[in-house]
Amino acid sequence: MDSVLILHGPNLNLLGRREPDVYGNLSLDAIDQQLKRFGEQKSLEVRCIQSNHEGALIDALHSAEAWAFGVVFNPGGYTHTSVALRDAVAAIHIPVVEVHLSNIHAREQFRRRSVIAPVCHGSISGFGYLSYLLGLQALIDLHLKK
Amino acid sequence: MDSVLILHGPNLNLLGRREPDVYGNLSLDAIDQQLKRFGEQKSLEVRCIQSNHEGALIDALHSAEAWAFGVVFNPGGYTHTSVALRDAVAAIHIPVVEVHLSNIHAREQFRRRSVIAPVCHGSISGFGYLSYLLGLQALIDLHLKK
Amino acid sequence: MDSVLILHGPNLNLLGRREPDVYGNLSLDAIDQQLKRFGEQKSLEVRCIQSNHEGALIDALHSAEAWAFGVVFNPGGYTHTSVALRDAVAAIHIPVVEVHLSNIHAREQFRRRSVIAPVCHGSISGFGYLSYLLGLQALIDLHLKK
Amino acid sequence: MDSVLILHGPNLNLLGRREPDVYGNLSLDAIDQQLKRFGEQKSLEVRCIQSNHEGALIDALHSAEAWAFGVVFNPGGYTHTSVALRDAVAAIHIPVVEVHLSNIHAREQFRRRSVIAPVCHGSISGFGYLSYLLGLQALIDLHLKK
Amino acid sequence: MDSVLILHGPNLNLLGRREPDVYGNLSLDAIDQQLKRFGEQKSLEVRCIQSNHEGALIDALHSAEAWAFGVVFNPGGYTHTSVALRDAVAAIHIPVVEVHLSNIHAREQFRRRSVIAPVCHGSISGFGYLSYLLGLQALIDLHLKK
Amino acid sequence: MDSVLILHGPNLNLLGRREPDVYGNLSLDAIDQQLKRFGEQKSLEVRCIQSNHEGALIDALHSAEAWAFGVVFNPGGYTHTSVALRDAVAAIHIPVVEVHLSNIHAREQFRRRSVIAPVCHGSISGFGYLSYLLGLQALIDLHLKK
Amino acid sequence: MDSVLILHGPNLNLLGRREPDVYGNLSLDAIDQQLKRFGEQKSLEVRCIQSNHEGALIDALHSAEAWAFGVVFNPGGYTHTSVALRDAVAAIHIPVVEVHLSNIHAREQFRRRSVIAPVCHGSISGFGYLSYLLGLQALIDLHLKK
Amino acid sequence: MDSVLILHGPNLNLLGRREPDVYGNLSLDAIDQQLKRFGEQKSLEVRCIQSNHEGALIDALHSAEAWAFGVVFNPGGYTHTSVALRDAVAAIHIPVVEVHLSNIHAREQFRRRSVIAPVCHGSISGFGYLSYLLGLQALIDLHLKK
Amino acid sequence: MDSVLILHGPNLNLLGRREPDVYGNLSLDAIDQQLKRFGEQKSLEVRCIQSNHEGALIDALHSAEAWAFGVVFNPGGYTHTSVALRDAVAAIHIPVVEVHLSNIHAREQFRRRSVIAPVCHGSISGFGYLSYLLGLQALIDLHLKK
Amino acid sequence: MDSVLILHGPNLNLLGRREPDVYGNLSLDAIDQQLKRFGEQKSLEVRCIQSNHEGALIDALHSAEAWAFGVVFNPGGYTHTSVALRDAVAAIHIPVVEVHLSNIHAREQFRRRSVIAPVCHGSISGFGYLSYLLGLQALIDLHLKK
Amino acid sequence: MDSVLILHGPNLNLLGRREPDVYGNLSLDAIDQQLKRFGEQKSLEVRCIQSNHEGALIDALHSAEAWAFGVVFNPGGYTHTSVALRDAVAAIHIPVVEVHLSNIHAREQFRRRSVIAPVCHGSISGFGYLSYLLGLQALIDLHLKK
Amino acid sequence: MDSVLILHGPNLNLLGRREPDVYGNLSLDAIDQQLKRFGEQKSLEVRCIQSNHEGALIDALHSAEAWAFGVVFNPGGYTHTSVALRDAVAAIHIPVVEVHLSNIHAREQFRRRSVIAPVCHGSISGFGYLSYLLGLQALIDLHLKK
Repeated sequence: MDSVLILHGPNLNLLGRREPDVYGNLSLDAIDQQLKRFGEQKSLEVRCIQSNHEGALIDALHSAEAWAFGVVFNPGGYTHTSVALRDAVAAIHIPVVEVHLSNIHAREQFRRRSVIAPVCHGSISGFGYLSYLLGLQALIDLHLKK
Repeated sequence: MDSVLILHGPNLNLLGRREPDVYGNLSLDAIDQQLKRFGEQKSLEVRCIQSNHEGALIDALHSAEAWAFGVVFNPGGYTHTSVALRDAVAAIHIPVVEVHLSNIHAREQFRRRSVIAPVCHGSISGFGYLSYLLGLQALIDLHLKK
Repeated sequence: MDSVLILHGPNLNLLGRREPDVYGNLSLDAIDQQLKRFGEQKSLEVRCIQSNHEGALIDALHSAEAWAFGVVFNPGGYTHTSVALRDAVAAIHIPVVEVHLSNIHAREQFRRRSVIAPVCHGSISGFGYLSYLLGLQALIDLHLKK
Repeated sequence: MDSVLILHGPNLNLLGRREPDVYGNLSLDAIDQQLKRFGEQKSLEVRCIQSNHEGALIDALHSAEAWAFGVVFNPGGYTHTSVALRDAVAAIHIPVVEVHLSNIHAREQFRRRSVIAPVCHGSISGFGYLSYLLGLQALIDLHLKK
Repeated sequence: MDSVLILHGPNLNLLGRREPDVYGNLSLDAIDQQLKRFGEQKSLEVRCIQSNHEGALIDALHSAEAWAFGVVFNPGGYTHTSVALRDAVAAIHIPVVEVHLSNIHAREQFRRRSVIAPVCHGSISGFGYLSYLLGLQALIDLHLKK
Repeated sequence: MDSVLILHGPNLNLLGRREPDVYGNLSLDAIDQQLKRFGEQKSLEVRCIQSNHEGALIDALHSAEAWAFGVVFNPGGYTHTSVALRDAVAAIHIPVVEVHLSNIHAREQFRRRSVIAPVCHGSISGFGYLSYLLGLQALIDLHLKK
Repeated sequence: MDSVLILHGPNLNLLGRREPDVYGNLSLDAIDQQLKRFGEQKSLEVRCIQSNHEGALIDALHSAEAWAFGVVFNPGGYTHTSVALRDAVAAIHIPVVEVHLSNIHAREQFRRRSVIAPVCHGSISGFGYLSYLLGLQALIDLHLKK
Repeated sequence: MDSVLILHGPNLNLLGRREPDVYGNLSLDAIDQQLKRFGEQKSLEVRCIQSNHEGALIDALHSAEAWAFGVVFNPGGYTHTSVALRDAVAAIHIPVVEVHLSNIHAREQFRRRSVIAPVCHGSISGFGYLSYLLGLQALIDLHLKK
Repeated sequence: MDSVLILHGPNLNLLGRREPDVYGNLSLDAIDQQLKRFGEQKSLEVRCIQSNHEGALIDALHSAEAWAFGVVFNPGGYTHTSVALRDAVAAIHIPVVEVHLSNIHAREQFRRRSVIAPVCHGSISGFGYLSYLLGLQALIDLHLKK
Repeated sequence: MDSVLILHGPNLNLLGRREPDVYGNLSLDAIDQQLKRFGEQKSLEVRCIQSNHEGALIDALHSAEAWAFGVVFNPGGYTHTSVALRDAVAAIHIPVVEVHLSNIHAREQFRRRSVIAPVCHGSISGFGYLSYLLGLQALIDLHLKK
Repeated sequence: MDSVLILHGPNLNLLGRREPDVYGNLSLDAIDQQLKRFGEQKSLEVRCIQSNHEGALIDALHSAEAWAFGVVFNPGGYTHTSVALRDAVAAIHIPVVEVHLSNIHAREQFRRRSVIAPVCHGSISGFGYLSYLLGLQALIDLHLKK
Repeated sequence: MDSVLILHGPNLNLLGRREPDVYGNLSLDAIDQQLKRFGEQKSLEVRCIQSNHEGALIDALHSAEAWAFGVVFNPGGYTHTSVALRDAVAAIHIPVVEVHLSNIHAREQFRRRSVIAPVCHGSISGFGYLSYLLGLQALIDLHLKK
């Protein structure tokens, strides 16, 4: 069965509890359930990983290359600083879609620059948990076109 | 019937002929047909406007407020410079989703900054004509939630 | 009879409806009426033009040289970006006074720089529709001194 | 009787003698007389203070809160550097209007930034001594609206 | 017969009247006549278009692709700001030569950067109306080499 | 019993051995003992954690929310770069006080900017191990005021 | 008896009245009383000086060298601009501790840089009037260690 | 027997598979074997560690101080961002040589700045796996000179 | 007979061999022959000098004042850095035209700024060896107008 | 008798005591005596003023215009920040020579920019108290040339 | 016999006498002897050239192409400024290795940027005269691989 | 007999002819004669060298160390760019005084930064040829103090 990785970066484990006016009040678990249900409808396996550790996120990207046809990735606070994650995305041979819950362009100046976006296939931000669903949809469309 | 505006900025009338490795080889008309078909499936009217004139785009945004529940907007080259378009987006009371065919973060430095994004509801880039479809999908979801 | 041009830039046609906490809740028409009444008291013809088109604003400045002794100009969002408007102001031989409804220095960083101000006779900002009245008063005083 | 403070910053005591092509050839005393006469017509007391001392200007702003309904302030060379004066303007509860004799936007680059303007009610520059008169007019209009 | 487009940007309709020490005192019409005479000598049709509207200039570039073998373009004040015009130049498949009457490198800092030059075939500035003639000469030489 | 977390960032495990002229010659263990003794006098439990792993520090902040009324945090080298730690501090609902052994403003330019300070309650730097004691004192005072 | 100087910079005389959500609602006098009481407990003389004049603050630092073992200094708006005060702090041979009521790192960009901090012994900000108490405590500890 | 640490940063585990035109097609294991053979010839123990975790790299540097006379360190993507790794290099008392496979000065702008280089003994870049061998040679020469 | 100097800066002696896709494959000698032939047609003496030495180029400019009515100057790599050459151009009383083979605006960022252009009469770039011919043509036209 | 003003800015009253490795160990009084003796030899009156108050320095410059033929001015820490002092120097009609004891170009970055130097006649720095003597000598030579 | 060029830039003739704590106390001649001996062991001719003249260094690079298989180049102070040398390195078809005696990353800010490095094969810095030996070793290895 | 070097940089050979309003109308020879006469009065040999070649200026500084006790150096256009000259000044063990005819702080922005000043003993600018005399005077005073 075809598989896809949903990769959540730092602090996303707090979703629902953390600044709900910015990030919405769905928990991470609730979002993961929605994504998995959406996958089932498309006969896809959707695996979800969250980590606050930059190194663990790099490891997850590396290993996804072996089993997934693509990654929906929310790099959280590492978006703006991590060249190492950028290099990991560039190093693997499957498409990565960057997603953000909030509209990062409408927040602090330093959040407007993503060092990871230039090596992603595309990026989606500002739609709350819908950003993930749209990213997953995009990956599937890319996969079908091949 | 509910209606939505697809607004195309400068040079997008050349789609298919213009730098096809960057922008794909679908013509603007072909994209508009796809979006309209998608709209019909959802019982939506999809109206498409293209202009190379900044002022005409502002006028279109102003008048859309009267008949559309949202706008999918590709501001093209005005993305990076037009405070006037930004103000138009901020002035109207319907959500605007910014879309781009190419991954603007993977191109020249000056294309990485959007002056319009901060006042949009969200933004999507890098998926070719799929960016429009995802943007339209997002607008519909936002509309249904209300 | 002596004449003066009041020139309104992009999005000002939405006055009263657009972000009223920033721009006040008088409509553009109401402001124009006040300016015309003020002109009548001074035996002046006050003509008012609004356009969202940068080119139309340039055209208006060019033609004003033939019939007006000065211009009160609110360049709106073009204030911060338009070298072409700056050149138009510098090219004509009548004084132009830059006005803004809001205090542009108290808003986003990019609104604090006017590329047009250096070639205007003076500038007034922050007093709501009063900015226009003060600008008109200044033009008249300049005119009488000649 | 209602009162207003006209506050002149550093080097303005030299007006008339100092770079007359930039600042005009009226002396400060002549300007103050004009402002006082204008005040009398409106049944206002107009008090004028000039100091070259940043601290004295801060003190004057603090004490004005007790007796004036507003301040017309030309911060001179402190315009571009004084956070302390900015804080003083922000700290008092009466409106302050920033005025400049010359068009500060048409001069050296460092004169184009005012650290004080963001906390003023509005600002007026480029009209010679008329800048003061327009500022006073604006303060009165603000006062009457209350 | 072979044809070429001479495209004049904003404010150039005022040539001869506008800051003659910077731009010379030939009118735009006089320059166009000279260019047409030069074209006749070379058995070329020289068409001249001027507009103050950014969008109209984009439209003119788009349509030139159908009938001209090249464009001599003076973008005026849009030189320094218009990504949309840059994209139009890059989108068409005929060479564009950027020309300026004045030496833009000897003027204000903001005039020293052209966002359009990187996608032009070459650029010429500082020779008054001769800049157009040299640009036309260059286009012809390029055309003959093909 | 009330509890507080002392959180030490990267390289602080080397205290006493590492550049003692900058960081003093007390070991981390000695500092922790002093802080615990101070806590005992105030009937507080003081728990101390050190990690060189950014992710582990994020985890520690997240879990502290469940058992501590506040955190004294020395982010070490992550102070200047970690948006992820900043987000972790902002996400939890207990006050965090940033402390530094050395005066970070008197060192290299890049150490003068803290990306974490803006979301902390306050910050203290330059007093050697006293910075921790003062930070703990501040947290207790904040706690008692509630 | 040992003595210490508490030095308050510009606008701090307005404490309690000035933007109380930023600076708290204790008056300066109330804060000074608390600091003096704290000094008495430690058998210290605490002298408090406030001035809006940069020069007077420099004079106060110079003379403190003769009678105080240290200074707790809140430079207010001069924090971000005054090289002269920085030089005064560097010139005297007693430690100076910089304190701020508000968390200057959480405010406007220009408040995040202190030109004085690099020559102070340490700095404390964000704890309201507690910042002064912690600064005084730090000075005493430094004094006892000698 | 004398020992040396070869420390590989993030994504280097993918060597041979990852962008071979940039990084060559030797695997990390093949490089490590070559370095170990080189060490045996010099009667040195060469230990090789790779990690994608910034914290693990810091830990490795700390512990190397106990058993190695020097470190050859390729910080990968952390080169450009990690103050924490810089502090770790500065904190230990054995020389560290920075190496890079590719010429980092010939790549993206952000790769040209190394925050770690200033505290290393020296740096070598651009020679593929030879960079490691040259770095090892340099460390040995430094060690023999002592 | 009237004379003109063609001055070639550093590395231009390698023309034809050096990066031919950027600089064309005509040798410098071939270009010089063409320019001389062109000169003969106009009854002009065309002298050509090339040097890699900044000082020799300055000397050549100084001495040209005595025998040439103008200079066509390709400053090569000194274009972007040499204030000394700029001063030499400004110091002599004959017009200097800056030319470049390649379109310097379409290359690396640092090549887009010319420190010499502001003191030249005009500049031409992007037309290969034609840039020289156009520059020579421009000089002759300027000369005839006198 | 001809007179000249020696004007010393902030902190210079501490000379001899303050950072003697930077500023030398002569007291201000000793320097003033030397300057006066030098004046007597030239039949000049040398008056010396020192103040830590920016406003007092402005006042001193204003009044010097009435009795001195020139000013030797060491603005101390105000050198780098005071537009008000710059304006005072520009406003008076006697030459001002800027002097510094230390070589301000060899110190912190922010000391390398003088906002006052552009309106002075010339500047001298780095020679200790000799800087004053050379400045005085220069003023006298300028005076004699008139 | 195979040959290689060692090229020393400005001020390196003073080695041994010049700032020995930065550059070591070996004379340039002593270093050249070591490199020649190393060459003899490898049956290579090692030619050494030093010049303080930028133009002479360019000439040397140009002529080396005819007789050497590579260059070890220490551009000294030209490292940070010379586009002309960069172009010379890019223009020749043999590899150039940049070397520096000191760790240029640990010195003044302006020494951290090399304009020449991006077109070199690789770079080595910080190992004193060993930098040259390692550079020579690297060139030989590159040569053997061909 | 004691000797001193007067070193003139690029374009100074044109003095008297070159922009006399900026540089005065004395020829370089006339200035050199004055300096030599001044030297004779003090029993000093004054040798004068001018070159437009950066390398020749470096050579002159190197050799001066053998016979002069100091150098008065006007680096002309190299002032703002030449790290190589800076290194030459830093490398020799005799004091160098930087002088400029014009007030470099009152000219273009790029002339306000000297890369050479930080390693000179002091600098003098703005007094025309007097700058040289004052510099020579300063060198003599420094020499006598030893």
